[in-house]
Amino acid sequence: MTLTFEHFQPGHLCSYGPRHITREEIIAFAAEYDPQPMHLDDDAANASLLRGLAGSGWHMCALMMRMMYDGFLHETASLGSPGVDEMKWLAPFRPGDAMMLDVEVLQARPSQSRPSTGIVTFKCSTRNALGPLAEMTVAVIIGRAAVAAEQA
Amino acid sequence: MTLTFEHFQPGHLCSYGPRHITREEIIAFAAEYDPQPMHLDDDAANASLLRGLAGSGWHMCALMMRMMYDGFLHETASLGSPGVDEMKWLAPFRPGDAMMLDVEVLQARPSQSRPSTGIVTFKCSTRNALGPLAEMTVAVIIGRAAVAAEQA
Repeated sequence: MTLTFEHFQPGHLCSYGPRHITREEIIAFAAEYDPQPMHLDDDAANASLLRGLAGSGWHMCALMMRMMYDGFLHETASLGSPGVDEMKWLAPFRPGDAMMLDVEVLQARPSQSRPSTGIVTFKCSTRNALGPLAEMTVAVIIGRAAVAAEQA
Repeated sequence: MTLTFEHFQPGHLCSYGPRHITREEIIAFAAEYDPQPMHLDDDAANASLLRGLAGSGWHMCALMMRMMYDGFLHETASLGSPGVDEMKWLAPFRPGDAMMLDVEVLQARPSQSRPSTGIVTFKCSTRNALGPLAEMTVAVIIGRAAVAAEQA
């Protein structure tokens, strides 16, 4: 893994994407995990607050995870996440969207309980051509290079 | 829809499940949305903090959504959600788990901006036979019966 805790400095900001969203994937996710009519059916969606077919908020979260993985986590010494501080679904995402992900490092601190790691807090925001879609703050446990070097 | 805003009183608590978790669904979700080795491969998972194959935290969220839908949202005048206040992944969920979902109403207040609706805040917790798995606080916009009656 090339990216360790030390790589993630507060203020560090990267953008990833676009991820092109299809009608098929919106319906497939909804059918399995969130079969509310507004995520499955055009008429129901048109009559809903979403004003047209839109994906489940949890689908957007899953796609944010995949975009983080493809963007940097695949080459990061990531050990997992204790959780999410806050998540806001700001606008519907729809078939045809070209979704972008912006990731900012808010905080990076060495772990007290697990000294070979640090906790990096990321602010992750998605957007389409019209504006913001969602944002969340998520903590990730990441291995430290200094410890790896000492153990070598 | 039989369940409106008025149905959800603070303190109201229900449990749903069990949902039986399979190895195949854990790997299928991870392959698509969270392909970190600890969610896909036994050897990598055994060497990780998870100490054995375990599902993506986002998979657990998606399953919580589905259990909420099957449990009560399918018959609730739900209009969607603005977001999640906090989510904690407390323990790994694994193939063979019989996952339970506990849902408690924390708060229910009429919407200022959309008087035909109210905002209900739920605390949702999952557990397996060993103990807690995850918990989150999520707000849902729900239609009010009183308004529906006035409009009838």
